[in-house]
This record gives sequence, structure tokens and C-alpha cells, in this order.
Amino acid sequence: MEKTLLSLTETIKTLLDEKKYATLKDILETMNPVDIAELFDDLQDEKTPILFRLLPKELAADTFVEMDEETQELLIHGFSDSELKEVVDELFVDDAVDIIEEMPANVVKRILRQADPVTRKSINELLKYPDDSAGSIMTTEFISLRPAMTVEEAIKRIRRTGVDKETIYTCYVTDELNRLIGIMTVKTLLLSDENKCVLELMEDNVISVNTLDDQEEVAQLFSKYNLLALPVVDTENRLVGIVTIDDAMDVLEEEVTEDIEKMAAVMPSDKPYMRTSVFGLCKKRIPWLLILMISATFTGAIITSFESALAANIALSAFIPMLMDTGGNAGSQASVSIIRAISLGEVNFKDLFKVMWKEFRVAVICGLILACANFVKIMLLDFHGTPLEQALPVAAVVCLTMLAAVIIAKLIGCFLPLLANKIGFDPAVMASPLITTIVDALSLLVYFEFATMILSTM
Amino acid sequence: MEKTLLSLTETIKTLLDEKKYATLKDILETMNPVDIAELFDDLQDEKTPILFRLLPKELAADTFVEMDEETQELLIHGFSDSELKEVVDELFVDDAVDIIEEMPANVVKRILRQADPVTRKSINELLKYPDDSAGSIMTTEFISLRPAMTVEEAIKRIRRTGVDKETIYTCYVTDELNRLIGIMTVKTLLLSDENKCVLELMEDNVISVNTLDDQEEVAQLFSKYNLLALPVVDTENRLVGIVTIDDAMDVLEEEVTEDIEKMAAVMPSDKPYMRTSVFGLCKKRIPWLLILMISATFTGAIITSFESALAANIALSAFIPMLMDTGGNAGSQASVSIIRAISLGEVNFKDLFKVMWKEFRVAVICGLILACANFVKIMLLDFHGTPLEQALPVAAVVCLTMLAAVIIAKLIGCFLPLLANKIGFDPAVMASPLITTIVDALSLLVYFEFATMILSTM
Repeated sequence: MEKTLLSLTETIKTLLDEKKYATLKDILETMNPVDIAELFDDLQDEKTPILFRLLPKELAADTFVEMDEETQELLIHGFSDSELKEVVDELFVDDAVDIIEEMPANVVKRILRQADPVTRKSINELLKYPDDSAGSIMTTEFISLRPAMTVEEAIKRIRRTGVDKETIYTCYVTDELNRLIGIMTVKTLLLSDENKCVLELMEDNVISVNTLDDQEEVAQLFSKYNLLALPVVDTENRLVGIVTIDDAMDVLEEEVTEDIEKMAAVMPSDKPYMRTSVFGLCKKRIPWLLILMISATFTGAIITSFESALAANIALSAFIPMLMDTGGNAGSQASVSIIRAISLGEVNFKDLFKVMWKEFRVAVICGLILACANFVKIMLLDFHGTPLEQALPVAAVVCLTMLAAVIIAKLIGCFLPLLANKIGFDPAVMASPLITTIVDALSLLVYFEFATMILSTM
Repeated sequence: MEKTLLSLTETIKTLLDEKKYATLKDILETMNPVDIAELFDDLQDEKTPILFRLLPKELAADTFVEMDEETQELLIHGFSDSELKEVVDELFVDDAVDIIEEMPANVVKRILRQADPVTRKSINELLKYPDDSAGSIMTTEFISLRPAMTVEEAIKRIRRTGVDKETIYTCYVTDELNRLIGIMTVKTLLLSDENKCVLELMEDNVISVNTLDDQEEVAQLFSKYNLLALPVVDTENRLVGIVTIDDAMDVLEEEVTEDIEKMAAVMPSDKPYMRTSVFGLCKKRIPWLLILMISATFTGAIITSFESALAANIALSAFIPMLMDTGGNAGSQASVSIIRAISLGEVNFKDLFKVMWKEFRVAVICGLILACANFVKIMLLDFHGTPLEQALPVAAVVCLTMLAAVIIAKLIGCFLPLLANKIGFDPAVMASPLITTIVDALSLLVYFEFATMILSTM
């Protein structure tokens, strides 16, 4: 697929150079807007406006929405005012808002000047909603019905007004004060008697969200309730817009990326990797690296304070990396499993003891297996040929620490994300890196405790 | 929300005990099937079959699909054959298949015996498709149209056959050999002249997938092309089923969980955390813990081989945890960013040099900042009061290693996932834990090299 598109880019370039516009038009018209947009993004050429002019009006708008913001800006600069107006008129309001949010001020002014007054008003209203709110991802173009309409009248209304609505499949029934009282699917309309009235057929048990609700929670309702669209109401239950599933899926994708980034100690951003600058990446990564580096000082301090124990038995230091790594890995396994379960709504703070008891048992089993494997490895490999009375105590210290480290790691790994969630922090921040640092310090303390206890009694 | 549901569970329990069935029926009928299913899952009581019988037929089936498999099994055991038949008749074929795949053999037999012959045949066919294939998530219940039909005839056909189809909004146009030649949305049908024919209105540039295509790739097409449904064809382009967006969203959620688990060195499974047994969790976690523990042996071996250098300057060992942690964190930042970019299709192997050059610059900047911060910290805190000629060389060794470790970590962190993707492995496996282990070993080598070079020349 990737390959076809690349060689297609070459073909298109050649055809553009040869000015074979009729052929180009034929090719473009067989393509999907998403693929055409990708083609334009790849092309990034001063000739793209020429190519864009070959697209039929509706396909042009659909394609424009799917492009990278750089390509969009490049095209807008090449547009005449009437061309820009044509594209803007075809856009859905929420898509227009998404584009405007990414554009520099002068381009925004030009776009708004070309929009018709009604659209301009809607755009300006949507721009007021805070980022990450339901209001910021909704569209104001939906079909509303009245409860007294018959099925026939409702279908007529859809036929008359449906063409520029983002979805016609779910219609919203409102009263004279524009309050949402029910939803009506086109499926029900098509499968019902034409003379029945909307009021008796509509679903009046409606799931809706408020304009200021968090977009992530809104998006999760789509997958929980298998929705195609979700009405957005204001504080007086007046219908102000709808969120459609394509926008909800985009939000879910963004939020997963954010969670994954936080788990890896990267500050989240909404720009794709390849379009983030080197400084942008540094800014996202440095804060956690610094915090974690400084907190690793505690671990260093622990080692320093046991310097004499280490100096007496230098072999002990060879096992530090393995103990720290294994503790860190065991902790991140637990924390990441819990973080994901929290974000899928499977687990919350009231399950704390159930989860900790479960993790404790998992830790004991995993810890014992690792300790045994480790014991065999130490005796057969590391201390091969060392007298037994010297090898055995060190092996015992290492293996006991291993067991303890895994238990500590798993317990902290499940406790911290649940606690974070409870007190209103994002559990994803409690992922591997932070937990690794804490577990490292604790495991080392245990290690040196065991070492002092066992090795000094000999 | 969680709270309302919990107290509702209590209310329902009380009403059940008091046998207030009319009230219960009224309450249930106002609720959404997803919430009723959650209620049943919470209840898990021998009385659930009584409660289930209060639901109207269609709501009962919609609710049944959303329940946990344990609740479903419990209910099926309580069902009479005719009750089971009623539920099975209302299920969509793909949902029936999902349920059957989770049930023990005797329950499966009972379900299949109650299904009507046509449904049984469809179920058996769907069960044959491999797990994770498009065939395994598709449904065979869709509306097909013929190219010669008029809009009016098409709408009539939808009205006649639509009631038990999973979606009516996208219809599929097939020829006499059942080959897919176009798609037709209800939107187009409703907004077009009744006498036009399907052939001239249908979209003939159709995105379809093959029955054996990977379900993750299928699901990603939904978000890429903003689809509501996707036709599935066999090798001869005959239409055999459709995948709807609700199933695609479930797949995306599963695949994200799998990726996140792999990144945390957990073997993926498709069971939610709370329903996985302790042994189940151990089995998912032990393999990577063992592999990583054993590979940490190399790190230990490096320390052992530099034992004399360490013994000479025991202060060096105090910085090992900080260097290892920071290297690991820097590596996982890079690897996780790249893994996510790969899975979103933003980056692939052909970008290798661009990515590595970017990460190199990021690493130099981050490394320098960390090294400087570290230098200040060492001189002011760790070696406060130590003579300068003793403190300075150690600080230099630590800070130079810090810079080198960050560069190594970032380069390996972006290289390995891209390589894995290129040679057909899952890039998610190349996440933090594996990279940490490799970076640990390399940073220690660098550390001791610098130590030997700088400290021995004094």
C-alpha cells in the first residue's frame, strides 16, 4: 500500500511536469480523499495548488480536511479569495475550527472573511470552548426534529436539510425551547409506519454530555455504549451540538499516545513525532530525566553509606545492576497493567486491597522462581570454583534480596497508580520510570541489610 | 456515575428480595443495555435469571451481549431451551460467535441446537476463521443491493430486510456472482431522486479487506478513512461479510492494551486484569523477567571485570544506579515515542537515518543538560569538602559517561524498534526493559573506560 502510493507520487509529479491535466483529473477522481491528502503531503510542491484545482468541489473539501497543516497553509496561500470561499463553504464547522486552530493569525482572518455570516458565527462560538472539552470537538451541524412530526415529515425534513449535515443517521428531537428530549435514528424512521409520530417512536432515554465535559470521557462513552454520535447540551439541557464517532476515535488515539508517553516519562504533546522539532522533543523529555536523575541520588547515597560493606565484599556490587533491573521490570509490569486497567475503567481505588493481595501472591511466585533460577546461575556460573562456604552466603543474600525486591516492586507498582487516580492525578505518571527509582532505592536498602546480617555473622 | 450504579445495585437487590417485579421491570426498561449488563455483572446472584426474564425480548438480547462471560454462562444454565432460543434468535451472528468462543463445549452445543439452521450455518462458518482475522470479527448480516435497482426499490428492500441487520446505513452492491461492485449509503439514497438507479449513484471506489487480513490492520482502516463499516471479501472478491465500527473499536482497544503490555515486558493476553488468575498473571510476567534477569548477567560481568578499578575508587560505585537509571529512562523515552509513531503509521524503516539524526541531536542536548546539572550536584553535594584534585576527575568521569549513556540510549532506543518492524517483529517488544538492559551494559563499559583513562593518568 505504502509502495503503491509512493510510486503514484512519482507518476503524478511526471504528469504535472508534462501538464497532462485531464489524465491527472481522471486519476484523482478514482481516489479516496484520505489517499489524495497523503499524496499532497508527500508532494509539498509549488505546483500543488494547480493539482488541487483539478479536484471536483466536494472531493476538494474532503481532501483538504485530511491534509497536514503545512500543506493546508501552503494551499491557502496559493488560493484566490473565491477559491478559499469555495473550500470553506464545503467544510463542516468542526473541521473548519480544527484547521483554524492550527493556522497563523493572518490566515485565520482570511478564512473567517470568506465564511458566510452564519458559519462565521458558529466557528467563533466553537473557538470559545476550552481545549479538551466536548464543546471543542463538537459540530453544530445536526438534524433536529420536533416530537409532533410524523415519520413522513421527519424523512422529508432529513431529505431537505441533510446534505450539509455531518451525520443524518441520528436525529435529535427537541422541544420549543430547544431542549433535548429524545433521539431518533434513521433506521427507526425507515422501518416504521409513515404515519406514526416522532414522539411515540423516539428513544427518550438519551445519553448526552455537557459542553465542558472532558473530551476523553466523552470519547470513552462511544466505545462503552457503541454510539455513532453523542449530543452535547448546555447547562439548561439545550442542544448545542453533536460529537461524531470519527472525532471521538481521533480523541481516543491522542489520549492513548499521551498515556503511553507519560508512562515513558515523556511530557505529552499533540504533535506527531516527525513534525516535532529537536528542541520540542528535548523540552518534552528533559524535565522527567532531570527529576529522575536527581532522585537517583538517594540510591547513590545508600550505596555510599554502605561503602564499607561493599569494600569488604566487592563481589556484592556485581549483582546490583541485576537486582535493580529485575525490581524495576517487576514494578513496571504491575504498574502498567494497573494503569491500563484504570484507564479502561476495570479497576478503581475501592479494589485496592483485592489488587494488592493479588499482586502480592503474583510477586511471591515470580520472586521465588527468579530467586531459584538466580541461585543456580550464581552457584554454577558466577562462583564456579569458589569454596562453598564463601559462595553460599553471598548467593543467599542475592536471592533473598531478589524475592524481596520483586514483592516490594509489585506492591508499589500497583499501589501508586491507584493512589494517584484516587487523589486526582494521572495514574500514567506513576509508570515504570518513577517506580523504578523508588524500587531501586528500597531494594538496595534490603540488599545491604541482608548483606550486613548474613555476611557479618560468618 | 459509578456511585449511582452501585447504589442502584443495592436497590435492585432489595426489590428482588421483596419480589417487586413490576417496579423492577419499570426501572430496567428505562436503562441502557450496557448499564443493565453492568448491573447483572455486579449482582452475580442465583436470582439473576428471574431479573433477566423481566426484560423485553430485544432489550434482553442487547443486554446479554454486553455481559461478562461468567454472567452469560450463569444465565444460560438458568435458561429453559425456549428462553435460550429467544435470546439466540435476537443476537447478531458475530455477537453469537463471540459468546460461543468463550463458552465451555456443553454450553456451545446447547446454543447451537437452539439456533435456527441458517444462523447455525453462519455461526459455524464464522467459527472457522482464524483468531485475529477480519473473518473472525465480521458479521454476515448486511444489506445487499443490485446495480439495476432504483432508489425507490433499494429503500423498499432496506425497509423489508433491515430489521435484523447490524447496520442499514451502508449497503453493498453486488453482481449476480455476489462480487462486490460498489457501496451505497442510506444518506445518498435518501437525498437522491427516487427514480435514479443504484448503478449511477453508488460509490464504486470501494475500500474492502480480505477474510484473512489481520484484524488490527482492518481496525486501523476505520480511523484512517473515517468508516462506519467495511466490507470483507474472499479471494474471488465475493462479499462474505462486513465489519462494523463497534467491533473495530474493540479491536483497537485490545491492540493498544497488548502494545502497552509488551512495552512493559508482559506477555499479552485478552483477559481483563481483574479476571486473570494469579497463575495467569505469573505466566504472563515470568518469561520476560527471567530473560531480562539473565541478560543483566552481562552487566554484572562487566562490573566484576572492573573490580580492581572499583576497589581502588569505591566512590565510583555510588554513581552506577544513577547512570543506569538515566540511560534506561532516556532509552525508553526514545523507544516508546518511536514505537507509538510506528503503530500510528507515522514512521517506518525508510525514515531510519532521519530519525537517528534527530535522536542524536536530542540526545546531545539532553545529555549536556543532564551532565551539567550532575556536575553541579556532585561538586556541591556529593563531594562537598573533598579536595578539588580528587573530586574533579571523578565528576568528569561521571558527567562524560552521562552524556555518552544518553546518546547511546537514544540511538539504540530508536534503532531497535525500527529494525524490529522492518524484519517483521513487533516493535513493542523493543521497549524500555530490553533497551534498559542493553543500555546498562554499554554505559557501564563506557563508565569504566573513562574511569581507567582519566583516573589512572592522575
